[in-house]
Amino acid sequence: MEKEIKIKNLKYCKENGEDISDSYMQKVGVLLESLPYIKEYFNKVVIVKIGGSMMEDEGIIKSVLDDLVLMKFVGIKVVLIHGGGKQITKLMEERGIKAKFIDGLRVTTKEVINLVKMVLVGSINSKLVSFLNQHGDIAVGVSGDDANFIKCNKKIYKKDGVEVDLGYVGEVESIDRKFLDDILSNNHIPVIATLGVDEKGNSYNINADSCASDIAKSLEAEKMIMLTDVDGIFDDKGKENIKLISRLTSEQCIKMIENGKINSGMIPKVRACMDALDGSVGRTHILNGTREHSILVEIFTDKGIGTMITSKNV
Amino acid sequence: MEKEIKIKNLKYCKENGEDISDSYMQKVGVLLESLPYIKEYFNKVVIVKIGGSMMEDEGIIKSVLDDLVLMKFVGIKVVLIHGGGKQITKLMEERGIKAKFIDGLRVTTKEVINLVKMVLVGSINSKLVSFLNQHGDIAVGVSGDDANFIKCNKKIYKKDGVEVDLGYVGEVESIDRKFLDDILSNNHIPVIATLGVDEKGNSYNINADSCASDIAKSLEAEKMIMLTDVDGIFDDKGKENIKLISRLTSEQCIKMIENGKINSGMIPKVRACMDALDGSVGRTHILNGTREHSILVEIFTDKGIGTMITSKNV
Amino acid sequence: MEKEIKIKNLKYCKENGEDISDSYMQKVGVLLESLPYIKEYFNKVVIVKIGGSMMEDEGIIKSVLDDLVLMKFVGIKVVLIHGGGKQITKLMEERGIKAKFIDGLRVTTKEVINLVKMVLVGSINSKLVSFLNQHGDIAVGVSGDDANFIKCNKKIYKKDGVEVDLGYVGEVESIDRKFLDDILSNNHIPVIATLGVDEKGNSYNINADSCASDIAKSLEAEKMIMLTDVDGIFDDKGKENIKLISRLTSEQCIKMIENGKINSGMIPKVRACMDALDGSVGRTHILNGTREHSILVEIFTDKGIGTMITSKNV
Amino acid sequence: MEKEIKIKNLKYCKENGEDISDSYMQKVGVLLESLPYIKEYFNKVVIVKIGGSMMEDEGIIKSVLDDLVLMKFVGIKVVLIHGGGKQITKLMEERGIKAKFIDGLRVTTKEVINLVKMVLVGSINSKLVSFLNQHGDIAVGVSGDDANFIKCNKKIYKKDGVEVDLGYVGEVESIDRKFLDDILSNNHIPVIATLGVDEKGNSYNINADSCASDIAKSLEAEKMIMLTDVDGIFDDKGKENIKLISRLTSEQCIKMIENGKINSGMIPKVRACMDALDGSVGRTHILNGTREHSILVEIFTDKGIGTMITSKNV
Amino acid sequence: MEKEIKIKNLKYCKENGEDISDSYMQKVGVLLESLPYIKEYFNKVVIVKIGGSMMEDEGIIKSVLDDLVLMKFVGIKVVLIHGGGKQITKLMEERGIKAKFIDGLRVTTKEVINLVKMVLVGSINSKLVSFLNQHGDIAVGVSGDDANFIKCNKKIYKKDGVEVDLGYVGEVESIDRKFLDDILSNNHIPVIATLGVDEKGNSYNINADSCASDIAKSLEAEKMIMLTDVDGIFDDKGKENIKLISRLTSEQCIKMIENGKINSGMIPKVRACMDALDGSVGRTHILNGTREHSILVEIFTDKGIGTMITSKNV
Amino acid sequence: MEKEIKIKNLKYCKENGEDISDSYMQKVGVLLESLPYIKEYFNKVVIVKIGGSMMEDEGIIKSVLDDLVLMKFVGIKVVLIHGGGKQITKLMEERGIKAKFIDGLRVTTKEVINLVKMVLVGSINSKLVSFLNQHGDIAVGVSGDDANFIKCNKKIYKKDGVEVDLGYVGEVESIDRKFLDDILSNNHIPVIATLGVDEKGNSYNINADSCASDIAKSLEAEKMIMLTDVDGIFDDKGKENIKLISRLTSEQCIKMIENGKINSGMIPKVRACMDALDGSVGRTHILNGTREHSILVEIFTDKGIGTMITSKNV
Repeated sequence: MEKEIKIKNLKYCKENGEDISDSYMQKVGVLLESLPYIKEYFNKVVIVKIGGSMMEDEGIIKSVLDDLVLMKFVGIKVVLIHGGGKQITKLMEERGIKAKFIDGLRVTTKEVINLVKMVLVGSINSKLVSFLNQHGDIAVGVSGDDANFIKCNKKIYKKDGVEVDLGYVGEVESIDRKFLDDILSNNHIPVIATLGVDEKGNSYNINADSCASDIAKSLEAEKMIMLTDVDGIFDDKGKENIKLISRLTSEQCIKMIENGKINSGMIPKVRACMDALDGSVGRTHILNGTREHSILVEIFTDKGIGTMITSKNV
Repeated sequence: MEKEIKIKNLKYCKENGEDISDSYMQKVGVLLESLPYIKEYFNKVVIVKIGGSMMEDEGIIKSVLDDLVLMKFVGIKVVLIHGGGKQITKLMEERGIKAKFIDGLRVTTKEVINLVKMVLVGSINSKLVSFLNQHGDIAVGVSGDDANFIKCNKKIYKKDGVEVDLGYVGEVESIDRKFLDDILSNNHIPVIATLGVDEKGNSYNINADSCASDIAKSLEAEKMIMLTDVDGIFDDKGKENIKLISRLTSEQCIKMIENGKINSGMIPKVRACMDALDGSVGRTHILNGTREHSILVEIFTDKGIGTMITSKNV
Repeated sequence: MEKEIKIKNLKYCKENGEDISDSYMQKVGVLLESLPYIKEYFNKVVIVKIGGSMMEDEGIIKSVLDDLVLMKFVGIKVVLIHGGGKQITKLMEERGIKAKFIDGLRVTTKEVINLVKMVLVGSINSKLVSFLNQHGDIAVGVSGDDANFIKCNKKIYKKDGVEVDLGYVGEVESIDRKFLDDILSNNHIPVIATLGVDEKGNSYNINADSCASDIAKSLEAEKMIMLTDVDGIFDDKGKENIKLISRLTSEQCIKMIENGKINSGMIPKVRACMDALDGSVGRTHILNGTREHSILVEIFTDKGIGTMITSKNV
Repeated sequence: MEKEIKIKNLKYCKENGEDISDSYMQKVGVLLESLPYIKEYFNKVVIVKIGGSMMEDEGIIKSVLDDLVLMKFVGIKVVLIHGGGKQITKLMEERGIKAKFIDGLRVTTKEVINLVKMVLVGSINSKLVSFLNQHGDIAVGVSGDDANFIKCNKKIYKKDGVEVDLGYVGEVESIDRKFLDDILSNNHIPVIATLGVDEKGNSYNINADSCASDIAKSLEAEKMIMLTDVDGIFDDKGKENIKLISRLTSEQCIKMIENGKINSGMIPKVRACMDALDGSVGRTHILNGTREHSILVEIFTDKGIGTMITSKNV
Repeated sequence: MEKEIKIKNLKYCKENGEDISDSYMQKVGVLLESLPYIKEYFNKVVIVKIGGSMMEDEGIIKSVLDDLVLMKFVGIKVVLIHGGGKQITKLMEERGIKAKFIDGLRVTTKEVINLVKMVLVGSINSKLVSFLNQHGDIAVGVSGDDANFIKCNKKIYKKDGVEVDLGYVGEVESIDRKFLDDILSNNHIPVIATLGVDEKGNSYNINADSCASDIAKSLEAEKMIMLTDVDGIFDDKGKENIKLISRLTSEQCIKMIENGKINSGMIPKVRACMDALDGSVGRTHILNGTREHSILVEIFTDKGIGTMITSKNV
Repeated sequence: MEKEIKIKNLKYCKENGEDISDSYMQKVGVLLESLPYIKEYFNKVVIVKIGGSMMEDEGIIKSVLDDLVLMKFVGIKVVLIHGGGKQITKLMEERGIKAKFIDGLRVTTKEVINLVKMVLVGSINSKLVSFLNQHGDIAVGVSGDDANFIKCNKKIYKKDGVEVDLGYVGEVESIDRKFLDDILSNNHIPVIATLGVDEKGNSYNINADSCASDIAKSLEAEKMIMLTDVDGIFDDKGKENIKLISRLTSEQCIKMIENGKINSGMIPKVRACMDALDGSVGRTHILNGTREHSILVEIFTDKGIGTMITSKNV
């Protein structure tokens, strides 16, 4: 049952010779325009994954977090998931440890996983929680260690048919949904560092993109938004013809990965989206988090920015 | 813990030669500007009393109701209270019954109280509920008869020292707060026709202004807004010098009533405000409901329109 | 586990020369006789539909409502549903609007639906609630508009193969069971005016008989009682031989409708009964509401009055 | 808000030559007459204490228990408390143990307390529960041992200024109200054997009259009824003039005990009543349980039988 | 996720010349050794059935009950079920009634069932509750009569093809799980006398072994322990070669019953175990309750004493 | 109601020639000996504060944490609070920042507070949670930032009458008890890093000793244990005569601080104890955490080790 509220040409007669400035009425008009969007997402779960690259610029983070605060206050159940690759590498360098990657996966020794925790939990997570909580008692920082709510297995990785030991790199086995539901039903935003725990209680680093997708599925999220530093997926038909693609189906994505049109860092994000769509997640988006307030533009206007990936053409 | 979100000069670089229209960014900017106001009223009770005079113009009602819908969706617990004097008189005339007033109070015979119910419950209340529910399952219409939630006594009225029988005109004895809390906690807006019930189960007409104040006190409302068709209370220092007064204390109101500066129809509204302030209600307002979206301007901007009455100078 | 309480020949010896009047003991005996019936319906839902024709005689209504009050206090979850056709026609006439019917269905223009609301909600519903609440905080008046709890569609009606526009005449699409359960679990009787709401928020008049059946199915009622002003269904074998039929199966009813033995106003009542039986409703009854306390006689004695319709011969 | 339902001269016109027997209508009339009484006690706690003497006649017990079943089904929260002195003495005799009393108090050795339990818990309590449960899953048998819900101290008793050891005879220290509330809110009748437990876990026999009063106070009962085998308290002004007293205040009782008009076995009952009235119990009654259905007559008619003791003249 | 806590060689340096006695550290070491067992049974249901034969020796009972108290306090949900055949026979003899058995089943007349209740409920159950409650508000005594929570049918028994009337000997039809869950969730141990109730409210004696199995299945118990006065099931290969069997499968038990290796009083215990295993009960044990603290040894050490019967070889 | 379970000389007869090893019976005996202690602390809150100095030795930490796991499983509500001064200084040195102290208080610049978070939240807290969760889903790591549950003010510090700016060093203003209660009632151990948040959302380092006391008071803890690396408070009467003091009252502590017998690092611990005792905390202890399982010895034996400080001589 949807009713459009039409904003008439808002006029306000003068008051004692003084005019009520148009700006107030414009503001009210905008609020009313937003109502259908607010209704659409009322009480729905929206997962936002923020990459480590964005974390370097405090202005950008704060703009993103302001968006989340607004979303929370108009009734959206927000979950924030973050990575921190760049910052981990930086701390390793400070300590004189050389970062080693195999096919883009960080080899994570016992020493390294401790640094990973310091960065993810002690620095990035803590900072995000602090920023959010400047608006009230809003956010709770958690990592998969807490109550072992992200259970994982050691990632088995083969290079050229030979198994390679990546150390403490994990793959999600299960998410304890009740743990997150308790936080959400207390009206808090869980801010999640993507560490996991294995059977024996060892901690593992988990890829934040795929972890976001696992959490989105577990919470049956309405929407999962992957924030990155490019505008989305492009259709590259020669230099003159680069064009942002607004919508893709999972099927189309598979083809574009096969023919190389989606590549490198974008692949895990797209795969996470496709994976989430296989579950019960409604829509997934790849947005440019460095553009200010891109999440709000996506949610509260009908300007579809970035690339939306859905299971079928809808 | 309050943090100002400062909206920087919102710019968005071009995207593939295409510009993201400024309007989207302006909209997002406005939403963020509204955040402090949204936070302020999150989960608070706001009582809105709407007079019968306003009900004649469907455009005005709808504009008022749109405001309430928005308020509900950003977390405000809204209670709508309405009268309907004009419409009652109209139906009485149709039936050939002459309305009789003593000092502005309608003499209410058994026949009249039945017409009052038809108008308040069957026409006005029903219409308000219908309009609100075009936005979803939002509103529930109730009158004091329902579960006897407004208990009242017959009003004892003396004119020139002699008691006059006004018939079924009542004064609130008690409000069943649980009844209203149940509706509010189901995320519904109670729309209240101000009828009451006495010990023996007789129905009475109750003045909507004073009933609003009783309900506001019972719910410990944050704010009570009396919508009328004038802009507020004016300071009349001769024709050239009429000026709207933005703020008054209870004490100042008493003086202005004594010296006649507040008079006629405004007196019961002002008295209702003062009465509410004696309870635990935070702020009361007299606003012009015929100015579009005046409630939203009052709540979501720092433009104080209308007249605010508080217990002390704050 | 049922145990008969046998009331022995109740005698009470004299007390100080004074006799305890037999009447007290008879009363107690009657209460104990009622116990098996009370146990049978404890915590069960019973739907009572009362027609507009009965509403004209205040004595009859009050007698019916007294029955409902008693039922509530001995643990039955009572739901009261009412129509009001006669009263609607009367108000239309007062307003100079000519009532127009097609095959017994009232053509309901925008103007008419507003009068329907005034009568159903503002007059009949309100009156029923008032009467019930003279016994305590017992009843809550609702219509399908409230929280949109009766969703409906416009009735598509064809006469001689041609679609006829009946205006705002609706057919139930769904009932929000939780809305009614909340009222019942607060120990209140919902008194229901059978209005419905469509997708766009328009109000419709709904046939009270069929609406009763939809509500009975939604609440999985134990029993649905259709009160009317005749004693039930008769077996008419010529003038000398008219006999009330005590029991019918759905199958038998279908035949009697086909061969014209059930006709005119009785048909919708019987259809409503058969429809309810198709759901999970236990038993349905057509009783004469103008006979005093016929509901109590039906429920608390083994005198089966009226006509009981069941799905099979039980 | 009380409304009298007046039962008009119930008549039922003939139906197809057949008369609806008057008896049905009389029954319905009686039920409606009972309504005000049902409303008065809806959801209220009523304590009934039954003495051991009454237990000998199975017919009497069953009549009393039928009354309790009816009370439960019309919404009264019933608590049944029983003693069993006679039966204890009988079992002791069978075992060849001579019962020894000091001022009416049974000297209770270790051996005797075990017999007390066998009789109270294993015989009387069990039998009462069985009888009640023939009407459904109604009753739960408990003794003060269960979850130690009746905590007590050893009774210190002095005879002629010298302390006498009564053995395991206790005085209530505290009642665990939650334990009983849990049973009542599950819609069960707690049937209570008045044993208590001391600090060290020893079991004690507790006087059932005074225990009833302690339980009544703990549950803030509306009414406490002491069933005995006489009709109440009499005013004995010489043989010709014995008259049952309908009402007494606590003050009057004290005087009558002082001047010997209340004596022997009646004293503990009257003291229990006065003690209950000192708490928050509304009214107390001494009734003759051997008169059939005396409880129902007391509760559901305005025939005050037996003697009612109240704190003041009300 | 299981982690072994290894107790290192516990040493404590001297303190001011004084040694912390080894015993303290040993105690702490033992507690830590028990942790894995405590974790294993945390919040699990364990059924313990105690036979009447054991009840004769107060020292043994107390030792068994101490075990249950400890189990409760480390988070196990304990249910205690008891019989009382010997004690019943004894009371019958005192009363001069000769006990009559058919194939080991007691012929139970109306008179006998009353004695059964006195013994089971008034003596044994009461005594067990008293002993447990010396440790706090721990136990609640119940019998199948309470709220009719054990519903049963009269046992149909044939001897040589001819039906024999055993009187009030019953077979469980259903267990009201909610009734027991309520007691367990209040942190209480239900102590159960195995009486049952039929449709008409008659009480029956039920075999405690098979009743234990029905209750274990209804509660989906982790473990059922049958305490008896022998050490378990023996493999008897001639006098020199008697050996306790530690583990048996249901299949093996069937064979041993067939070939007579399991016989007489052990058969109903073994059948009860097999029956429980058919439900969802995890493991069943036959233990010697006369050996002190055999339950604790079974639960808190890896010394498997007695005979464990499982559905398969695990 | 306390009952001693006396462990008789545990003997077990031979079984088929095989002896049940004494060790099993000893173990069971120890468990039963512990029962009174388990009962005493069932469902009580115990606060344990662990200092940074102890964290260096993994063996010691694990031994402490094993104690907490056991405590949790026998029903104690455990709260773990930790500092990390040494580790902070170490990380600062690695980064080339010189730690600066004024009267033992660390001057905490913006840069330093970020390192504090990395160490406390990302390293120590995370490690403690990991260790505990090797035993199951037991612990949840939190810091005062989470949902702003520790609100604080900047510490105003004067040296020689002149205010000195210590930077981000805070003093607790309030603890959000509900936040911790939610974790405890989910059966989790909150592991708390003692950071706080001010009005504007800035993070502060808070002294762990005094924070422990604030949390203990807020939770109305039964017991607060300060683990350190000495055995308690000593009575130093010359070298030959150093003796551990087992018990002190607050009053005695004040004197010993005044006369210098309690000094340096012990002072804040003792002050925290006295502060907690001023609230509703029952007993406080200073224990040597480097002695293995000192907490268990304190709680589960009557060997009082360390120094117990109470409000009065009890």
